Amino acid sequence: MNVTNEQIQLARRPVGTPVMEDFAFVEAPVASPEDGELLVRTVYVSVDPYLRGRMQDAKSYIPPFQLGEVISSGVIAQVVESKSDQFAKGDLVLGALGWQRYTVTRAEAVRKIDASIEPVTLHLSMLGMTGLTAYFGLLDIGQPKEGETVVVSGAAGAVGSTVGQIAKIHGARVVGIAGTAEKCDYLTEQLGFDVAINYKEEVKAALREACPDGIDVYFDNVGGTISDAVFPLLNKFARIPVCGAISSYNNTEVEMGPRVQTALIKTSALMKGFTVGDYSDRYGEGLTALTTWYKEGKLKYEETITEGFDHIIDAFLDLFKGANLGKSIVKVAEIE
Amino acid sequence: MNVTNEQIQLARRPVGTPVMEDFAFVEAPVASPEDGELLVRTVYVSVDPYLRGRMQDAKSYIPPFQLGEVISSGVIAQVVESKSDQFAKGDLVLGALGWQRYTVTRAEAVRKIDASIEPVTLHLSMLGMTGLTAYFGLLDIGQPKEGETVVVSGAAGAVGSTVGQIAKIHGARVVGIAGTAEKCDYLTEQLGFDVAINYKEEVKAALREACPDGIDVYFDNVGGTISDAVFPLLNKFARIPVCGAISSYNNTEVEMGPRVQTALIKTSALMKGFTVGDYSDRYGEGLTALTTWYKEGKLKYEETITEGFDHIIDAFLDLFKGANLGKSIVKVAEIE
Repeated sequence: MNVTNEQIQLARRPVGTPVMEDFAFVEAPVASPEDGELLVRTVYVSVDPYLRGRMQDAKSYIPPFQLGEVISSGVIAQVVESKSDQFAKGDLVLGALGWQRYTVTRAEAVRKIDASIEPVTLHLSMLGMTGLTAYFGLLDIGQPKEGETVVVSGAAGAVGSTVGQIAKIHGARVVGIAGTAEKCDYLTEQLGFDVAINYKEEVKAALREACPDGIDVYFDNVGGTISDAVFPLLNKFARIPVCGAISSYNNTEVEMGPRVQTALIKTSALMKGFTVGDYSDRYGEGLTALTTWYKEGKLKYEETITEGFDHIIDAFLDLFKGANLGKSIVKVAEIE
Repeated sequence: MNVTNEQIQLARRPVGTPVMEDFAFVEAPVASPEDGELLVRTVYVSVDPYLRGRMQDAKSYIPPFQLGEVISSGVIAQVVESKSDQFAKGDLVLGALGWQRYTVTRAEAVRKIDASIEPVTLHLSMLGMTGLTAYFGLLDIGQPKEGETVVVSGAAGAVGSTVGQIAKIHGARVVGIAGTAEKCDYLTEQLGFDVAINYKEEVKAALREACPDGIDVYFDNVGGTISDAVFPLLNKFARIPVCGAISSYNNTEVEMGPRVQTALIKTSALMKGFTVGDYSDRYGEGLTALTTWYKEGKLKYEETITEGFDHIIDAFLDLFKGANLGKSIVKVAEIE
């Protein structure tokens, strides 16, 4: 190999909504793999809202990116050169890899992809981390029961759309909250949601109407004022998996909202934050269930695929404009 | 019986902090008990912050008091006349009874008190609802482990002081937050708390210093800005039993505070509201444990006893001034 690598590094910490200038496109040499290592070529890159948190210099569940560090996320790559007997040239692998065209990685840091899954990008979306996030957050924390009302915010996103469908599989009545009429139509017409609410209209009244029996589970992807509208409608023993707070990620000051304590006491409700990594010892269970439902036609998905390494940052910035339907992925190269 | 009853009714719904004029002292005749009923004479009345919530006309875990209704709470009473073969004249009973000198009640709505417990008021405090509240909130939701750091707000109150002692029994490091230097001394010198913080001084800095290893359990009795100071110090998988929000009970407008969602996600923390009634099928277990610890000398208690039926409302209003140490009880009559 004698090619030049291209990398995307964190150039400075974003203040508020990230902008292109927060990132640097840098050229660097590509190292040769040592024993037990692989040289892989990036094919698909997952862009996710949670990465915004890693750009802050703040304590969280994973360390922040350092300035000058290559951004990393879920990546599907193809093996170019293998110094491991577990992998051969041409294998497709999945791992948390850098936003760069080539990566040298320890073989044990990636895993081979189940080639029977089509399209391969599902390993980054519904049959990957986002699907597992939906699965464990909803079933372990939310625990929806037959006939209960489940409300999902960010419902047309990668996690939310899967949450709603799993809730339907479990016999719940599902109300999705999304940001455009088109997304709302997608939820009710394509994914089988019972009701979809456009949060750019009157959420409070719409939620009251959509949930005449109150809310048993609120899967929270967004936080902020949309979540505020949910609290007064919680039923006794309601459960709130707190998965994301995209409405807050770009705030530069601590965001104020109605205190939740009194609502929690009145309803004995449970609110729990989580990240998919909390369930890493149960990924096998989750992937088996998701794959089974997918093959049975019970889970549909949507992906927003952006083309080209140079557009990774554009795709990332689009997440905060609510532009994506389903999982947002960048295609960097063809599979060879 | 030919005596006149005295009752305390809700005269109007309090706006903000309750005042004497929200209540009416009323005279009424005393009925005679029918078959299966008891006539009981009120001896001790429990006054509790949660009653403020029942004076609002708002949906909650128990129905609100109606205007003109006799206020009720935990009461120890003595049987004057029994039309039930389960009770005899002179028996001491416990139940949710009205703030009045005499009550006619169905026999099954009260239970006889374990006469081996001294003082009898413990049935209203540490070996009654407040002790059970501490027990289930801490152990079922908080689940403190050996060596973990447990923070309790309202620590010198009836629930908080028991929470801290149970946490110590379970091997945790316990930090109490209370409102006077005298209360803080009581917590560390009498109850064995490791650190006590006076919230009228700088809570944030004091908490950071008191919790160098972060906070694993926060038993929240108060809500508001004291709780705000806790969130940045939560450890991964922290648990927050939300028991009370006395700082908010008298607000006339929705109280705003920093949103908690991001802190919950970063730490995968759990926050759960509860009321003791959620555990009614496990009261026996709780009372057995509390009584055992008490008899072993592992649980100490404090009661603030106010004398006289005419001072029930004073004692209730004092709760919101932070005047009480431990459980607040009004002695209405002597045991005969």
